[in-house]
Amino acid sequence: MKPTDGRRRVVIEDVSPQIDAGRHPVCRIVGDSVSVGAAIFADGKDELTARLLYRHASDKHWRFTAMLSAGNDLWNGSFVVDKLGLWNFTILGWVDHFATWANDMKKRLAAQSRPELVDGIGAASRNATTGPDVESNAATQDIVLALRTGAAMVDQAAARAQGKDAKRMKSIAREMERLAKEPRDFYDDPLSEESLLLMARYPDLTHATRFEPELPVRVERMRARFSSWYELFPRSASSIPGQHGMLNDVERQLPEIAAMGFDVVYLPPIHPIGRAFRKGPNNSTIATPDAPGSPWAIGDKAAVACPPLGAEVAGDCGGHKSIHPQLGTFTDFDCLVNSAQSQGVEIALDIAFQCSPDHPWVTEHPEWFVIRPDGSIQFAENPPKKYQDIYPLNFESRDWRGLWDELYSVFEFWIERGVRVFRVDNPHTKALPFWEWCLSALKSKYPDVIFLAEAFTRPHVMYGLAKRGFTQSYTYFTWRNTKAELESYLEEITRPPISEFFQPNLWPNTPDILHRTLQEGGRPAFMHRVILAATLSSSYGIYGPAYELAENSPAEPTYGRSESEEYLHSEKYEIRQRDRNAPGSLVPLITALNKIRNANQALQSNESLCFHEIENPQLICYSKSTPVFENTILVVVNLDSFNEQIGWTNLDLDKLGLAANESFQVEDLLSGAIYTWRDRKNYVALRPGVQPAHIFRVIRLQ
Amino acid sequence: MKPTDGRRRVVIEDVSPQIDAGRHPVCRIVGDSVSVGAAIFADGKDELTARLLYRHASDKHWRFTAMLSAGNDLWNGSFVVDKLGLWNFTILGWVDHFATWANDMKKRLAAQSRPELVDGIGAASRNATTGPDVESNAATQDIVLALRTGAAMVDQAAARAQGKDAKRMKSIAREMERLAKEPRDFYDDPLSEESLLLMARYPDLTHATRFEPELPVRVERMRARFSSWYELFPRSASSIPGQHGMLNDVERQLPEIAAMGFDVVYLPPIHPIGRAFRKGPNNSTIATPDAPGSPWAIGDKAAVACPPLGAEVAGDCGGHKSIHPQLGTFTDFDCLVNSAQSQGVEIALDIAFQCSPDHPWVTEHPEWFVIRPDGSIQFAENPPKKYQDIYPLNFESRDWRGLWDELYSVFEFWIERGVRVFRVDNPHTKALPFWEWCLSALKSKYPDVIFLAEAFTRPHVMYGLAKRGFTQSYTYFTWRNTKAELESYLEEITRPPISEFFQPNLWPNTPDILHRTLQEGGRPAFMHRVILAATLSSSYGIYGPAYELAENSPAEPTYGRSESEEYLHSEKYEIRQRDRNAPGSLVPLITALNKIRNANQALQSNESLCFHEIENPQLICYSKSTPVFENTILVVVNLDSFNEQIGWTNLDLDKLGLAANESFQVEDLLSGAIYTWRDRKNYVALRPGVQPAHIFRVIRLQ
Repeated sequence: MKPTDGRRRVVIEDVSPQIDAGRHPVCRIVGDSVSVGAAIFADGKDELTARLLYRHASDKHWRFTAMLSAGNDLWNGSFVVDKLGLWNFTILGWVDHFATWANDMKKRLAAQSRPELVDGIGAASRNATTGPDVESNAATQDIVLALRTGAAMVDQAAARAQGKDAKRMKSIAREMERLAKEPRDFYDDPLSEESLLLMARYPDLTHATRFEPELPVRVERMRARFSSWYELFPRSASSIPGQHGMLNDVERQLPEIAAMGFDVVYLPPIHPIGRAFRKGPNNSTIATPDAPGSPWAIGDKAAVACPPLGAEVAGDCGGHKSIHPQLGTFTDFDCLVNSAQSQGVEIALDIAFQCSPDHPWVTEHPEWFVIRPDGSIQFAENPPKKYQDIYPLNFESRDWRGLWDELYSVFEFWIERGVRVFRVDNPHTKALPFWEWCLSALKSKYPDVIFLAEAFTRPHVMYGLAKRGFTQSYTYFTWRNTKAELESYLEEITRPPISEFFQPNLWPNTPDILHRTLQEGGRPAFMHRVILAATLSSSYGIYGPAYELAENSPAEPTYGRSESEEYLHSEKYEIRQRDRNAPGSLVPLITALNKIRNANQALQSNESLCFHEIENPQLICYSKSTPVFENTILVVVNLDSFNEQIGWTNLDLDKLGLAANESFQVEDLLSGAIYTWRDRKNYVALRPGVQPAHIFRVIRLQ
Repeated sequence: MKPTDGRRRVVIEDVSPQIDAGRHPVCRIVGDSVSVGAAIFADGKDELTARLLYRHASDKHWRFTAMLSAGNDLWNGSFVVDKLGLWNFTILGWVDHFATWANDMKKRLAAQSRPELVDGIGAASRNATTGPDVESNAATQDIVLALRTGAAMVDQAAARAQGKDAKRMKSIAREMERLAKEPRDFYDDPLSEESLLLMARYPDLTHATRFEPELPVRVERMRARFSSWYELFPRSASSIPGQHGMLNDVERQLPEIAAMGFDVVYLPPIHPIGRAFRKGPNNSTIATPDAPGSPWAIGDKAAVACPPLGAEVAGDCGGHKSIHPQLGTFTDFDCLVNSAQSQGVEIALDIAFQCSPDHPWVTEHPEWFVIRPDGSIQFAENPPKKYQDIYPLNFESRDWRGLWDELYSVFEFWIERGVRVFRVDNPHTKALPFWEWCLSALKSKYPDVIFLAEAFTRPHVMYGLAKRGFTQSYTYFTWRNTKAELESYLEEITRPPISEFFQPNLWPNTPDILHRTLQEGGRPAFMHRVILAATLSSSYGIYGPAYELAENSPAEPTYGRSESEEYLHSEKYEIRQRDRNAPGSLVPLITALNKIRNANQALQSNESLCFHEIENPQLICYSKSTPVFENTILVVVNLDSFNEQIGWTNLDLDKLGLAANESFQVEDLLSGAIYTWRDRKNYVALRPGVQPAHIFRVIRLQ
């Protein structure tokens, strides 16, 4: 089958950036310049012209900008995404006959003075004599014909133009024809800058090739890329010993948390906690009556006098659209959100789509669960282990549409109460097509919403979730502790193709993960791990105050394991009240880190992350910089929690914007010290617990 | 917008092999096993099953085969392409609830003997006592429910089955229900091999995910991959001095060429040669009246008494469907083709879609050319240079459909006369959409036709042509002479992704290219270059007898160049009669090379090409082997045309199917000598002109 128009000679291939042939949008931040590349070529030697078309979802028409040839059939162009939401781009390429003609004309004009260049075969065979007269005659004959060809092209282009341009172009065409009629020995260049510009303005696109499909770009706000997260349990936030904390206790802590420099305060689920099968301390299956239970076991409709102070939200009691009565009311919640906003902080909620047995959905929509042959609802299982406090949702439900709509409405419920950041629990246990639809629909309606995936799962699934709309993702960072592990992993997740859709958020601890490095290394380890997290990635988080206080006692290992990554007396099952400013607290260090992050733009993205050699395997060295090195940060971290480590760097000077042999200064933003360094090899010595790292600002001296 | 069925939980990504998301078919040879890979995953921990669907274009229905999990969400499968033509494949993936159930059942059964494994939360909170009775009761209770669940699944599957299978499955279901009703302390495994097989035969595909798009595979015959080409000019083939050779002279040479081991005899264009602007010797623009002209200037309608011996092909005189009268008649041609076939050789024709001024198309279809303002036809130009013996076709013609049909018909004309191999001249000067349509249409109708692209052009265009249907392509091999150049380039073109659509055909010389390496190195260089070509690639060719006779005199450099890659007295413009068996001829070496290629399967494909270290930059070492090393060939070549070179190998033993420290024999297939080698490091010494290379067959001793 022939194509509709076989005259479209231009081929457009290898268009970037794209994911899976346009199946998923690449991710950018508002204000970014999106660099587009492609291979654009055709048969023969004609000049090509290419145009980058782009538009926001709300634009009626395409905007366009010229692409430039970079040689070897590669072309580049770019456009600025100045608005949140979904954009599309594509490429138009065509044979530019006028540009070809203009190039050829230049060569013909040049040949007038060098007639030997003209291969006058025709003349030679028709006429035994050769000589300058005949040859220069051939050169000028070419020009006459070329002028006529050119005039015809300009006329055609004039028909595509309007108004003054059309008039001007017609007169240019007439002038060229006139020139062609006057016999001359020598022609000047008939092409002015003006005529070239006019012709470029009205190209003949009749046989232009358009790349398909249109490629999507999802544009989000700066916080999607650059964010500093602080997790705390509201129920532990009371200053009164033994008292169940409430949302207004969190509100009281906001100034302190904001002063530390965090911009996202993330709360584990604030919904009612199921009564059935509540866990006791240290995940015990035996729970005392006053055990607070796990916030991730969402339920408890019947056990709550509903509502405590009158119906705040009509008909809404228990479940994902409720607040645990011991945490407070919706009024308290609104105050918290507003107070946070006024202090430049956002509240992030934890959305965990699972239900304890007393969740409202169990009675209202049993079809959203798996029903066993005896009529009971299937609880979570990893046979023979049972998790009877959790009923997983059934994404193969006949009423999958109703289920999807309800889950969507949970997000929308909190969005409309002012929440714009969500941390999603175990997204890899909910169907990926659901997330693809839900996150895309939410982002279309609320383009400033951010979703963090707690996707501790296999790489393909983790990346699959990121492609499907999760703005940020937890990573394997907690299990990457050695230099080799860190370098390899961070290179993978900060470079294309992964970086086109995956924004890492590095957590040195979570309520579920107390890594052996921290268990064994104590406070010094907590220091270097948070320095790594805060400088390797533009987004990071800590679970506090456990982190500031360097709590590192693990629970007993569970059956079949020799070690545990669980916290002893985990706050998941108990209230744990602490003073984050206790002696030895890492609050000052963390405050300094956030200050450095906020003051140094290089640390606010990951694309420039580059590792430098340093000849001690316990020392890791890396840098980030802004595009023309206005701000360059160089970090050296001692990964040893116990011993001082020394070593010599072998810096990749190009990546620091420095020249060979150049002297420069490095200002340690943690200690304030300034050193003069030179060239690639410079000495460092770092002591755990005292000075575990340098965070240098590079200062050029010339 | 929700999807049609949101219950399709499985995701299928990263499917290989594919080119540009299925835009172009990957290429395989009939009999190949196509290895398919994909990432297949879903939410949660359920078992997945995946099926590879495949079919030939002529199949009514899909065939299928199981895919196997390779871990980390990667799956593999394969299918054999046992027929020429276009195939398609895709993947079906689904959540296999029964497999999940069966795995869970195994664990439940095992827990019967280890009740402590059962986390009987329910029991613990309802009942203060715990103990073996209660726990084992929990384990068996699970099994009872599971049996009922399983029975329901088997019943559903039985409804998808027929006949004996359906009956058997129903009775299996009844048996499971019966078991569930009998109270027991201990259950045996209710699942037989038979029931598992039956269930696997009737999966529930209601919510299966199907990968899109279907991915194409073009399957061609063995000669598409493994071919040895010999190019000669028919007009030089006469044994009578000074006489213009004819097709029957080529026929007379066939036994000799076949004896050398070649299977494709390629002739420059055999069509009439244009009279206007004919070139003289050494590309001179001054041609004597008896100059034979360039075979690529196709035309000459009027100058030929048409036809010489009566109308052989009615109405056909001059142009691409004619034979140059000085070469012979269509009867001669048919004899040549048949004679070749009986000797196991194929005739390849050169198709050059350009016209000299007296080509029939010029008068019959002037609209297929570019017309200048003075009404004359635009000749080829690179201003100010003119090539007035060539009129290029205009692929932007209004009658592009007519042009495409005519060009297609040229191929079809010769195909119907028995030609199945075409070398296409300068395909990169003809529109790529044309090739895409033409080659695809021809291959659909004649799946055994092979096209070789003479695409000496930029990489993107060269690869773009290969993607669009050219079976084989010339390469940059002539300009890759050093070890580094050869290793780098050959690795690029013999590995995916390039190898999925690009089959290299390595030519150490062509009528257009006499490289400086051959000019300076003389006969020794000709030896090592043809050894490289014949062993690095499964397809190679030489232009003879110039090659066997190591002709290496270049023409004078043309204006602006300091050296020339043109032959002196190029056969493009003159008749050049030679005796390929003259003293010093390389016929014996070339014969030996082709014999080695035919006898060693490892050399009949490129996918196993692997370079080994050898510590002398003038020595290059590489191997090829069949999949389980039944046939392993190891080559060492001295790239120095003047000096002996010695060195030690550092063999990658894995790639040779050898173990560390293993002793093995290497039989030099050129000299007959046998050496015993051991382990990685072995000594070689090679002298140019005498023994420029080893072509070893590796023989294991254990």
